[in-house]
Amino acid sequence: MSRTLYDLAAARDDVRFSPYCWRIKMALKHKGLDWREVPWRFTEKNVIAFADSMTVPVLVDGDTVVADSWNIARHLEAHYPQAPTLFGGAQGEAHALFIKFWCEQTLNPQILRLIVMDLYARIHPQDKAYFRANREARFRTTLEALVVAPDQGLPALRASLAPVRAALEKQPFLGGERASFADYCLFGVFQWARAMSPITLLEPDDRVYAWRERLLGAFDGFASTLAPARA
Amino acid sequence: MSRTLYDLAAARDDVRFSPYCWRIKMALKHKGLDWREVPWRFTEKNVIAFADSMTVPVLVDGDTVVADSWNIARHLEAHYPQAPTLFGGAQGEAHALFIKFWCEQTLNPQILRLIVMDLYARIHPQDKAYFRANREARFRTTLEALVVAPDQGLPALRASLAPVRAALEKQPFLGGERASFADYCLFGVFQWARAMSPITLLEPDDRVYAWRERLLGAFDGFASTLAPARA
Repeated sequence: MSRTLYDLAAARDDVRFSPYCWRIKMALKHKGLDWREVPWRFTEKNVIAFADSMTVPVLVDGDTVVADSWNIARHLEAHYPQAPTLFGGAQGEAHALFIKFWCEQTLNPQILRLIVMDLYARIHPQDKAYFRANREARFRTTLEALVVAPDQGLPALRASLAPVRAALEKQPFLGGERASFADYCLFGVFQWARAMSPITLLEPDDRVYAWRERLLGAFDGFASTLAPARA
Repeated sequence: MSRTLYDLAAARDDVRFSPYCWRIKMALKHKGLDWREVPWRFTEKNVIAFADSMTVPVLVDGDTVVADSWNIARHLEAHYPQAPTLFGGAQGEAHALFIKFWCEQTLNPQILRLIVMDLYARIHPQDKAYFRANREARFRTTLEALVVAPDQGLPALRASLAPVRAALEKQPFLGGERASFADYCLFGVFQWARAMSPITLLEPDDRVYAWRERLLGAFDGFASTLAPARA
């Protein structure tokens, strides 16, 4: 069966930076599934209109079209139950939903403020006006006023990761002995930054760093093929 | 089989304010179990020395002694598997561990700073010197310098609850259709404040307020028998 993922790309076609698409690429690997990718830009709304969505990821799985990373993860869990589980049942999924929102609402805004000008510099030229207008409306300020310097933003970000660090002291992954979709939600945030910004978010002595290394090495180093952004 | 819970009490014997003990009382109710309670104060270390613990909750379940709320929850899940599940399996438990730490490391310190002088006023006189010395060492400042006014502390606390609010938009409990131990970890934080401080942490139009009401009503209103602190 053919599987197609619409995946957000930067100016360079091979720089895939969507945290939400990374969740799904890791989930597809987790399920042992193959797919082809269509590089997509923010302004190509017409290309994914068939999915009734304005954003990626969009997955076409045979005859099934699914948009939104959470819906796609649920689709994969339901349709490939023989493959390793992403959630581990109803409560595992319910708890993972909190972790997903924590990533989106606590971490993403902090990292965005650190990397926003790096993002702006590296997105496709055709996306720049859209990105600026959209983010400036969402945060009610200019990109230039939104950005914070690493020495200002990193301490708070690293402090926010305290509960991750504490959980990883007890178990190798948020999902326990194996990575779950909760891990992929968090990992996607770091891949977003890796793709687009040279800022060092994690120090090597951080337990979260070691966790990220484990996921960069997973599936034969699949996620490590994303080259880190250079200054 | 007899079951005994050592439960932190304030100056008044019936004011039980430990967020960690509340987790366990809700978990015991969830499992349909009975217990007797021994009111305990911070300075009564000798009373729980048999459990090799300096803090409560301590549960004596027949011949088994268990300390630490997480260990007790795991004990209840393992020993009463026929009763409703607290975790929903390995990943559910692993994800709940993150939520537990998020409550302890993100919410608790913020609420502590709001209610610390209320706590100090209401704990048992014999505990005051211990409480002051312990908390002042932990936070490296005086209680009087630690406290923040509601108009300063509440906006940040309510903002921190954003991922809870988002999850509760999709499901009635953090655990999904039913409350799980993750819910009880969060609920315990609110019971701690309810017992000891007149500050209104949640407004009635907050989705988290409605969630808390559901848990106050659970098990025939068991947790609502804790009288709210008055100014």
